[in-house]
Amino acid sequence: MLSQVVELIEAKHRFAITSHIRPDGDGLGSSLGLYWLLRALGKEAEVITHDPVPHSYQELPGAEEIRVTPNVDQQYDAVFVIECSDISRPGLVDLEKQFVVNIDHHATSALFGDINWIDATASAVGEMIYNLCKAIGVRVTREIAECVYTALVTDTGSFHYSNTTERTFKVASELVKAGVKPAKIAQNVFGSYAWSKLQLLSQVLATTQRDESGRVAWMRQSLQMQEQTGATEEDGDGFVNYPLTVAEVETVALLKETAPGVYRTSLRSKGDINVARIAERFGGGGHRNAAGCTLRGDWDEAERLIAGLLIEAVEKRHGEIDRTEDAAA
Amino acid sequence: MLSQVVELIEAKHRFAITSHIRPDGDGLGSSLGLYWLLRALGKEAEVITHDPVPHSYQELPGAEEIRVTPNVDQQYDAVFVIECSDISRPGLVDLEKQFVVNIDHHATSALFGDINWIDATASAVGEMIYNLCKAIGVRVTREIAECVYTALVTDTGSFHYSNTTERTFKVASELVKAGVKPAKIAQNVFGSYAWSKLQLLSQVLATTQRDESGRVAWMRQSLQMQEQTGATEEDGDGFVNYPLTVAEVETVALLKETAPGVYRTSLRSKGDINVARIAERFGGGGHRNAAGCTLRGDWDEAERLIAGLLIEAVEKRHGEIDRTEDAAA
Repeated sequence: MLSQVVELIEAKHRFAITSHIRPDGDGLGSSLGLYWLLRALGKEAEVITHDPVPHSYQELPGAEEIRVTPNVDQQYDAVFVIECSDISRPGLVDLEKQFVVNIDHHATSALFGDINWIDATASAVGEMIYNLCKAIGVRVTREIAECVYTALVTDTGSFHYSNTTERTFKVASELVKAGVKPAKIAQNVFGSYAWSKLQLLSQVLATTQRDESGRVAWMRQSLQMQEQTGATEEDGDGFVNYPLTVAEVETVALLKETAPGVYRTSLRSKGDINVARIAERFGGGGHRNAAGCTLRGDWDEAERLIAGLLIEAVEKRHGEIDRTEDAAA
Repeated sequence: MLSQVVELIEAKHRFAITSHIRPDGDGLGSSLGLYWLLRALGKEAEVITHDPVPHSYQELPGAEEIRVTPNVDQQYDAVFVIECSDISRPGLVDLEKQFVVNIDHHATSALFGDINWIDATASAVGEMIYNLCKAIGVRVTREIAECVYTALVTDTGSFHYSNTTERTFKVASELVKAGVKPAKIAQNVFGSYAWSKLQLLSQVLATTQRDESGRVAWMRQSLQMQEQTGATEEDGDGFVNYPLTVAEVETVALLKETAPGVYRTSLRSKGDINVARIAERFGGGGHRNAAGCTLRGDWDEAERLIAGLLIEAVEKRHGEIDRTEDAAA
């Protein structure tokens, strides 16, 4: 709960903050927002992560002070764990030996912390960090504001996702008042790509296929494409969303070859279609509309397998809609 | 001025509203927002446009009642002209015979109206229509809110552009309170594309080239690509922005073949580089960072010509920066 977090911060002195592996805008923005909040109170604080800061987030205030480490090598009064479904997600050895504060905006969080502050009404943990500033009486500085805004703009997909609320926009307005330049953040996060990403996008889009109904699409990203364009596997982040911008497309799979015969697979869907359930069949997981798993073996077969499961899920869903409509008729 | 607009609406009864040719989200959203405002006051109102409503905006409340016409064929008490730089932009014959109210958020507007209400601090005309609701005492209904929100989200590039202010987000928050579902609008505007657009994007991206410095990029969209993918010329809207997401790229040209030997050319830039000045050399125009013109003749030559001018502009700009730095050193 928020009150427990406020009490802890007021009573203690030495803190670490971490987020999940391959950290994103909410993970890093919220971690650094909390870092600046703690520093404003005169506390000791550091942000530690398993993976380095991606290019898009290197302009965040304080990003250069983040310590990349595989384990928690010191004793802290408490470690804040940001936006993680369970205690293994940060990828940090010995984390469980610490006093852990779990801060998340997903209702599905495993409540693994000694304190758990979960607010499923928040669009991003960033929004919760803003609330914490208000609750604890810390002025929202430009540094805090830029970090929290980055969390908001990334986790809401530039305010396109259904987690965008009246409150999200109200907080965004307050953050601009506190000094955020929305165009500058957008440029850092969405406008600092490598040329190779653009070339890779063209090649990956060219592989896009769809089923007869037009509702299911799938695409490939090969090691050869990455070599030829000089792109990294991470340059392909976000490509899976492109086919979803087509009106009829309801679900998409992107198979990224990470080693010969190994395909990191991203699944996306619109509305009620649950792709997490499909990812779980291959040892993966995620949310209803965004999930991932790893497939192995022959590429064509892997593609047929996953496309078949997506087609089945879409047909089942439309069967349910038809039956409901028949019953209503 | 706003007060003149309020007085006019209160005194008169029969209104038309129009925007520019090939209307966009602000043109249509603001026109329909004003339509619902006038209707709420019991006035007669209709929206007339030269071109039909694009697919992305057909879900706007009232879109189905828009009348497509090449001329103003009736006499109104006043015609509101939304977001137009001059009186020819709506493409409507006999418009100048009407009592014209020019409503725009561009400081460059030609003040062609009998009343001119220009507010360059507004992110979109939509924001001005929201202010008009407040000034005239009309409750912001769900219909008004959806139209105004669409204007905001499109004219700010999903809140990425520098016209996004504290006020923009505050209004967005109020619109959500009035019933807007941001995800639904985003789905209508940015997620209802044709499959052919995705295929065309892949082909156009594959043509992208850049100069040695990496600061200037150019790309092509041919009639053959459109035929092969079944795409329309309009499906290519927005493609010119893709290379701008690359960190080093400062300016981009997209040459769209509209007839053999005729290329509608879109120019984009970041920061200080003025592409409107280049477009004007070919009888085109626009703003500093977004402009357009039409080129003719041999494709390779047209491309070399425009790329050369962009390279020159970028080199000149960097020369100025270098000289300033030298002078400061």
